[in-house]
Amino acid sequence: MLERVRDEAPQTVGLLITSLTNVRYLTGFTGSNAVLLLSDGEAILGTDGRYAVQAAEQCPDLRILLDRATLPAVARRVPDAEPLAVESEHLRVSDLRALEDVVTGRLIELSGVVESVRIVKEPAELAAIARACEISDAALEATVSRVRAGVTERDIARWLESAMFEHGADEISFATIVAAGPHSAKPHHEPTDRPVATGDLLLIDFGAAVAGYHADETRTFVLGEPEQWQREIHEVVEQAQASGRQAATAGVDARAVDAAARDVVVAAGYGEHFDHGLGHGVGLDIHEAPFFSTRATGMLPAGSSVTIEPGIYLPGRGGVRIEDTISVTDGPSRSLTTTRRDLVALG
Amino acid sequence: MLERVRDEAPQTVGLLITSLTNVRYLTGFTGSNAVLLLSDGEAILGTDGRYAVQAAEQCPDLRILLDRATLPAVARRVPDAEPLAVESEHLRVSDLRALEDVVTGRLIELSGVVESVRIVKEPAELAAIARACEISDAALEATVSRVRAGVTERDIARWLESAMFEHGADEISFATIVAAGPHSAKPHHEPTDRPVATGDLLLIDFGAAVAGYHADETRTFVLGEPEQWQREIHEVVEQAQASGRQAATAGVDARAVDAAARDVVVAAGYGEHFDHGLGHGVGLDIHEAPFFSTRATGMLPAGSSVTIEPGIYLPGRGGVRIEDTISVTDGPSRSLTTTRRDLVALG
Repeated sequence: MLERVRDEAPQTVGLLITSLTNVRYLTGFTGSNAVLLLSDGEAILGTDGRYAVQAAEQCPDLRILLDRATLPAVARRVPDAEPLAVESEHLRVSDLRALEDVVTGRLIELSGVVESVRIVKEPAELAAIARACEISDAALEATVSRVRAGVTERDIARWLESAMFEHGADEISFATIVAAGPHSAKPHHEPTDRPVATGDLLLIDFGAAVAGYHADETRTFVLGEPEQWQREIHEVVEQAQASGRQAATAGVDARAVDAAARDVVVAAGYGEHFDHGLGHGVGLDIHEAPFFSTRATGMLPAGSSVTIEPGIYLPGRGGVRIEDTISVTDGPSRSLTTTRRDLVALG
Repeated sequence: MLERVRDEAPQTVGLLITSLTNVRYLTGFTGSNAVLLLSDGEAILGTDGRYAVQAAEQCPDLRILLDRATLPAVARRVPDAEPLAVESEHLRVSDLRALEDVVTGRLIELSGVVESVRIVKEPAELAAIARACEISDAALEATVSRVRAGVTERDIARWLESAMFEHGADEISFATIVAAGPHSAKPHHEPTDRPVATGDLLLIDFGAAVAGYHADETRTFVLGEPEQWQREIHEVVEQAQASGRQAATAGVDARAVDAAARDVVVAAGYGEHFDHGLGHGVGLDIHEAPFFSTRATGMLPAGSSVTIEPGIYLPGRGGVRIEDTISVTDGPSRSLTTTRRDLVALG
């Protein structure tokens, strides 16, 4: 992967990687303090003494530099007169100023150099994402069988997170969203002690992580017999989601994928209630390039892994979102999360 | 808290808060996209449509601005000619450039404005930290009673995290560290499938979070009868930690607190094996100001909450760290984590 990044970056320029995720991607190092310098054929990993043993184990082929003031220490290793590119979307302004003192007049601000390489997953990366998705499916199945009226959103979130660990997750991908009744109208609701009640929509957005790679999945259930409006918005979202998944093949414009799903929601009269992008890349970050929205640019490449997650949210009443993590290929996309998508009644 | 920050910041200057933690501290808003503008007596919270309902609920007294391009949209609300201060330790360089287009020539880079206020906790904040510490203690007790030779580091981490949730944690403060045998020589080891064995040191560093506020605690155990070298380094760390806790009272230099513990380790001949700072503030961030190290500056104020966590790490053999989260007052500091600190043999 280091080679792919070197091909992407301007030649004869050092590259200073300060995003921890990008450092992990390029080196395998998972410590919480890391700076990677790619310069003139040489790679130096900077961290501090807490990670001396770990860095040597995870990166046996890299030069390791241990210094508590890691960033300036690494920057001082840039050859004189060599321009140094920094990651402008990750570097903090205060760190930029510290670098300017060391590498005066030679800084170049770049964005997305490593991210553009990360979009196309290696087979081992796709395998980790697929495994994370399997675990997520299995954990969801184990959890929803326990849901009855009277249990709380927080109960459900804890059951689901425990089930992900039991099924082999290394980590939880993000704070689990469990939103019942009117709470489901908030796309990013945080679980509360509110008990779920008969008649509620129940939106669950969650994911497991394996070896640093994430899954992202959402299903929306109903407690007891669904009302007509619940059936209707669920049906629209289900159709929109299928349309989005179908559109997401290699070579398609990212904006066209968003439109394929959004048009279904708009045609059904719910356009104003779908106020977020259709999806995003998934990998070492839970949200990474590419992004699907009405303003998206660029093309979807084969080998990418992305979410398709349309939603309809009716304030005060409830909402529905259906989300899969899919693998984009030259042929039809393949959904890595496979839990059934129709409206299932619980309790 | 808004008032305390306004007192701290330069007058007649707008303040643009982009750290999510600082926005949460000042407004209570917990969404994953937020920008807060404090300008000329007015406060505007920027976020996007996903958080429309949540922002209105959590911040009923603030003006809410919903825009997917949140940062420039908020910046356009800065009154003409008013200078705008940004948080240089949080703002990304690419966002700085986007702001420069909107607020040409009027940007001021500040650091630590909100953090310096956050050091001194309000009673409700201290109560949340104390509760998180109680939960952590209770979860540790429940977990270590299950530890036997043959269980894996990962088993122990999962038991401990489940126990924290069962005892009332809202979240896990950070990825739990469980390091057995030689792994304990890595201060920030990640749990593996290695089974713990008789004769191992077992270092556990973990914490619960309540209402966004963190606990941070470390204890080091031994499986079976300790060897002499294990007793010795544990004894030194225990004394160093007690000395650090004793030194951490209001008005003391942060560097003197580090020295109070470090001198004990150095005098025992293990100075080179204690290669990290003595501790850090704990609050909405798991690591926040103040920081204790050999290069620390500044004074410890009453009302702060900090960790005291010396360690000795012998590569290839094992390590010991003991860490408490303490509350700093004008009198003696009070440890909020209270699990016994002597060397306990398990299994």
